[in-house]
Amino acid sequence: MTPGTIYGVGLGPGAQDLMSVRADRLIRQAQHVAYFHKAGRQGHARRIIEGMLADGVNEYPMTYPMTTEVPFSDPRYQQALADFYEVQVAQLKALAQAGESVVVLCEGDPFFYGSFMHLYTRLTATVPVEVVPGITGMSAAWTATGQPITWGDDILTVLVGTLPEATLTAQMQASDALVVMKIGQHLDKVRSALAQAGRMEQAWLIEYAAMGNQQVRPLIDAPDKAPYFSIVLVHGQGRRP
Amino acid sequence: MTPGTIYGVGLGPGAQDLMSVRADRLIRQAQHVAYFHKAGRQGHARRIIEGMLADGVNEYPMTYPMTTEVPFSDPRYQQALADFYEVQVAQLKALAQAGESVVVLCEGDPFFYGSFMHLYTRLTATVPVEVVPGITGMSAAWTATGQPITWGDDILTVLVGTLPEATLTAQMQASDALVVMKIGQHLDKVRSALAQAGRMEQAWLIEYAAMGNQQVRPLIDAPDKAPYFSIVLVHGQGRRP
Repeated sequence: MTPGTIYGVGLGPGAQDLMSVRADRLIRQAQHVAYFHKAGRQGHARRIIEGMLADGVNEYPMTYPMTTEVPFSDPRYQQALADFYEVQVAQLKALAQAGESVVVLCEGDPFFYGSFMHLYTRLTATVPVEVVPGITGMSAAWTATGQPITWGDDILTVLVGTLPEATLTAQMQASDALVVMKIGQHLDKVRSALAQAGRMEQAWLIEYAAMGNQQVRPLIDAPDKAPYFSIVLVHGQGRRP
Repeated sequence: MTPGTIYGVGLGPGAQDLMSVRADRLIRQAQHVAYFHKAGRQGHARRIIEGMLADGVNEYPMTYPMTTEVPFSDPRYQQALADFYEVQVAQLKALAQAGESVVVLCEGDPFFYGSFMHLYTRLTATVPVEVVPGITGMSAAWTATGQPITWGDDILTVLVGTLPEATLTAQMQASDALVVMKIGQHLDKVRSALAQAGRMEQAWLIEYAAMGNQQVRPLIDAPDKAPYFSIVLVHGQGRRP
């Protein structure tokens, strides 16, 4: 029996026509589609591909265990997540070994801060796995601002809001262009770090980049709360003829 | 007369089916297509879309002035480039004002170290301009290595090989994951900076990512010279359950 392939398919930032032609083809032809989501929600990845699936496709929602009740640093959280990944991997492996290929939906680019990589590292030694890169959420964010993110020899640093404030500040001072992902509940800390680094006036907040409800504004004009799909960025000003 | 739109269309890393569905549609429907290239060469952007253009499309090759004879720091080079951009902008503006839309082909993502931004900043006040983001060459490069570039709260720093060695070294020490673009003639300097930063053993060299002649290898096993389409990267090892 020829094993099937597990495809980790990058969906891009959220607009259906910003996924790659390869991703579009794989999703429309798929017989088996798996995706992460939280209990009680459809999940963003599944929502992006609404209307693209063939009739009779088998769907495999992968429902995250508790995510906010227990902090990430708690060993119970780590164990619950590891157990969860093992269950999903067993299911995907069984399908592949039965000759079935599966498309796993991945927001953005699968190898850039994605969840698919936790499946990937557990699968790749035993069944064929292929990754289709995607347009990142940060590309959609800087495109939404109408300004290039990097010019010439600009340095770009990508940070996540979960980092300690001192780390954020030091990195913000040492880079030309900045992207801060995973803003969520960390907006106050990110603001404070930007102010200390002297970058506050140049910062933009982009919510829901490339989605229907996209919002772009200077961070100084933004409210105190930001939704999950938010990115803060500072444009580089590198050499330009 | 309704003006036409100038579309800066990201082509992605080089494989035709890694461009977005939106880019694919705009290119196949285009009546006017413009692209940068060097004298005597077709140009990479034009090569990527081979076979996609409609019959009778008008092509506008934008031929760079001298690029290697005079160093970038020379004011004559800067002036020649500025004059070149003005000529291209005048041509695009005339088309848009005559009601014609134009697709400008952009390798990778237009706002990420692209040449299109030099046209964009000169056009955007007078005619409609739309930018379509693309999959970056660096996404194709890390996908080619078969390893995620960033996990959890990894910091990613993107550098260009043209930076001074001391700057490269300091940034390489302070980041988790690294991408170095524009390697070309700077491979020796990039190697030296990686060695000083203690990152040499973790570095990969990817040539022609997502193209037919893709090559992936540890940097310590790579030859002394790298082609223009080369990226060096170091994967992050962030927290993972």
